[in-house]
Amino acid sequence: MSSNGNTINFTELIKLKRDGDQFSPAQIHTFVQGVTSGAIQDSQIGAMLMAIWQKNMSDEETLALTREMMNSGETLEWPKEWRVVDKHSTGGVGDKVSLPLAPALAACGCKVPMISGRGLAHTGGTLDKLESIPGFNVIQSKQQVKQILQDVGCCIVGQTESLVPADRVLYAIRDATSTVDSLPLITSSIISKKGAEGLSALVLDVKFGRAALYKDLDSARELAQSLVTAGNSLGVKTGAALTRMDAPIGQSVGNAVEVCEALECLKGRGPDDLTELVTILGGHILRMCGLSSTLESGKEEIALKLNNGEALKKFQEMLEAQGVSADVASSLCSDETDYFRHMRRAAHQTELKVPDDGTVLDIDGLALAEVLHKLGAGRTQSGEKIDHSVGAEILVKMGQQVQKGESWIRIHHNSPDLSTHQDSVLQKALVIGSRDKYNVVSRVAEFICPNNPNMS
Amino acid sequence: MSSNGNTINFTELIKLKRDGDQFSPAQIHTFVQGVTSGAIQDSQIGAMLMAIWQKNMSDEETLALTREMMNSGETLEWPKEWRVVDKHSTGGVGDKVSLPLAPALAACGCKVPMISGRGLAHTGGTLDKLESIPGFNVIQSKQQVKQILQDVGCCIVGQTESLVPADRVLYAIRDATSTVDSLPLITSSIISKKGAEGLSALVLDVKFGRAALYKDLDSARELAQSLVTAGNSLGVKTGAALTRMDAPIGQSVGNAVEVCEALECLKGRGPDDLTELVTILGGHILRMCGLSSTLESGKEEIALKLNNGEALKKFQEMLEAQGVSADVASSLCSDETDYFRHMRRAAHQTELKVPDDGTVLDIDGLALAEVLHKLGAGRTQSGEKIDHSVGAEILVKMGQQVQKGESWIRIHHNSPDLSTHQDSVLQKALVIGSRDKYNVVSRVAEFICPNNPNMS
Repeated sequence: MSSNGNTINFTELIKLKRDGDQFSPAQIHTFVQGVTSGAIQDSQIGAMLMAIWQKNMSDEETLALTREMMNSGETLEWPKEWRVVDKHSTGGVGDKVSLPLAPALAACGCKVPMISGRGLAHTGGTLDKLESIPGFNVIQSKQQVKQILQDVGCCIVGQTESLVPADRVLYAIRDATSTVDSLPLITSSIISKKGAEGLSALVLDVKFGRAALYKDLDSARELAQSLVTAGNSLGVKTGAALTRMDAPIGQSVGNAVEVCEALECLKGRGPDDLTELVTILGGHILRMCGLSSTLESGKEEIALKLNNGEALKKFQEMLEAQGVSADVASSLCSDETDYFRHMRRAAHQTELKVPDDGTVLDIDGLALAEVLHKLGAGRTQSGEKIDHSVGAEILVKMGQQVQKGESWIRIHHNSPDLSTHQDSVLQKALVIGSRDKYNVVSRVAEFICPNNPNMS
Repeated sequence: MSSNGNTINFTELIKLKRDGDQFSPAQIHTFVQGVTSGAIQDSQIGAMLMAIWQKNMSDEETLALTREMMNSGETLEWPKEWRVVDKHSTGGVGDKVSLPLAPALAACGCKVPMISGRGLAHTGGTLDKLESIPGFNVIQSKQQVKQILQDVGCCIVGQTESLVPADRVLYAIRDATSTVDSLPLITSSIISKKGAEGLSALVLDVKFGRAALYKDLDSARELAQSLVTAGNSLGVKTGAALTRMDAPIGQSVGNAVEVCEALECLKGRGPDDLTELVTILGGHILRMCGLSSTLESGKEEIALKLNNGEALKKFQEMLEAQGVSADVASSLCSDETDYFRHMRRAAHQTELKVPDDGTVLDIDGLALAEVLHKLGAGRTQSGEKIDHSVGAEILVKMGQQVQKGESWIRIHHNSPDLSTHQDSVLQKALVIGSRDKYNVVSRVAEFICPNNPNMS
């Protein structure tokens, strides 16, 4: 194999980055092609990723890496008149935003070919949540996706073999080699996939806080800037919301329980913070793709679709289009709320009690997610099976006045008992204090978009 | 798989070193066991090696790594009364020291189970050189090695499958991932193998200069100190010579041509610098293992064995013990010098001419080695075949007065012609100047040994 007449020497490429040098676009092309074709050895990929983690990449290198990864497989193309949009979250606890947002955007006239992921470690995955619904099939061919977008307007599917194959290789190795949290590697992984989806507009939900990959606003902002720059450089109008990820989003964490909450949101009865996130992120997308003139009118449009049943109807159609029987889809999307008629319920429900009178000041989403992970709701290695029925319903809200002895959380589990350790971790996740210590904070801290007159 | 009751998480181990933390001995054990058993993925080894390259290891970590690697396979044991010794060079151009040294030491009463390597990049390998001799078999079982040591006193063999298996895995991956030149990785690789040989005394020949891995004395000294510390910590009396590696050692570079020169050395007619290196390194070994009371008497003892034919006799016996026919061994070790009766001669010999009258001030060993490498004398990747007949005889000596038009080098090659580029590189390798610019320097710059009263 040769490049510019020279034998490709991956060892030499690794050495360059090892020593902190900058790659040329041609060198990045060589690396990504080697990853895609299998010409570069796994050990070399591991060493290269660690060298990139240690020495970082310039903006130019990150853009070249993103573009090469995007072009490592096929890219999707759509009819010119479609407004093809998507939202991507960096992963949170209780983050079921995609489930109401995709159909709400479809109800507004957008096309939403949402390619989602699975949960890993303490963060849940949209695909896992949807697979709580019997029959839901996340595997859809390119032709099927196009047909669903044509007919319904939105779908939520898994990554296909043909889209960004370099990312599948690199992501698995990053996961095994502690090189996930590298700015150029995160940026290229996320944006290459979104670029390959052929989007007009993209909003990124970049989480920061205790239960997020990035713990503080500054580092999350750095990632958001990198993502926004890379996305726009590929021709996708890209913006990023910086949102707090300390307490769980909404009142439920798990898989089946989060589907229930998403359905409630689609019926106009969702928890305030979830509905706020859906409308803000959706509002930005509508503004960016030109369907709304301002963020405010975009938010109102999304809220309207959640309240008037049009988003719910799109969700029902999407369920059917992705393999759920008409009966189940119709029942889940009806006025009924007995969702566990159709989804498996865990064998045990254990409620924990509030230890003192006071105000709910904090609920530690990370601690809660880690206990649920151990109970089977999450996976430690990709490919592991998860238990969709495991989850938690949080029965109190932030800032709520509570009394000693009342139930604050209901854990759905299949193991006979919670361990003493799990019980203790969960109890510490709830912080009760005096009312004057409570501050209301919005989940969305900032919104970042490039200096692009088309986006203002 | 579990360690201390916890699931082994190689990803977490990588993360520790990624962030510059220090490993505990137990963590290093886990890593080396994972390498040996295959439980750790190649991508994880690549990432770990790059993290070690970037963040280095403390002395304690390096010693633990060395010990764990040594214990990753079987270790050799010998009769108590044997003085088992060895020499290891970090690799040079024209370095055929092992060929006369091993039999000279055997003639002095030492046992020399020399486990050698193959050439890579511009440095030659002792095994490759010996394989120029028809029938020479570098693969000998543990039992065969013991028998040869019993009968002859020395052997020069390849690494066996059972000795330090962790190093074979790590070395191949270091080579592919540009992580060869890391102090803890070099130290653990070299010393673990020497520790597994069950040595009493070991002298390391650490090269510095243009044609060496380390270009300057200071960095070579740092490696030498690390090697000496690790060797002695494993109970092997270890010292290190720091030797200059700018011009080739002796007058020949290649494989078959170097065997010829080694035979000349064993017949008491070797070039001065080669004979000097053999006697100094051998003298240190004899002193360290107690067979000589001083370095000087040790050097004299080695010189005697080279001059009185006893080393040559041991070499002849070693050749026969390792598969060479009695006829060939006897002929090579006779008074005859027509060595190419038994070794393949290259199809072409091309002599290059001295461009100006003057004194030979320098011969660039690296440039010469790189041209020979291209002509087939070396390999770029391990496992490649090499051409034993390719090589160079240098017809002038450093400091010699030469005249324009006389031949200074004879290249043995099988490709029809040297390229213009090769011709030009070779001509630049020879530096001619005025006599007053010439300084005689000894190859051995320093000798490093620990503060050990048994070694002084």
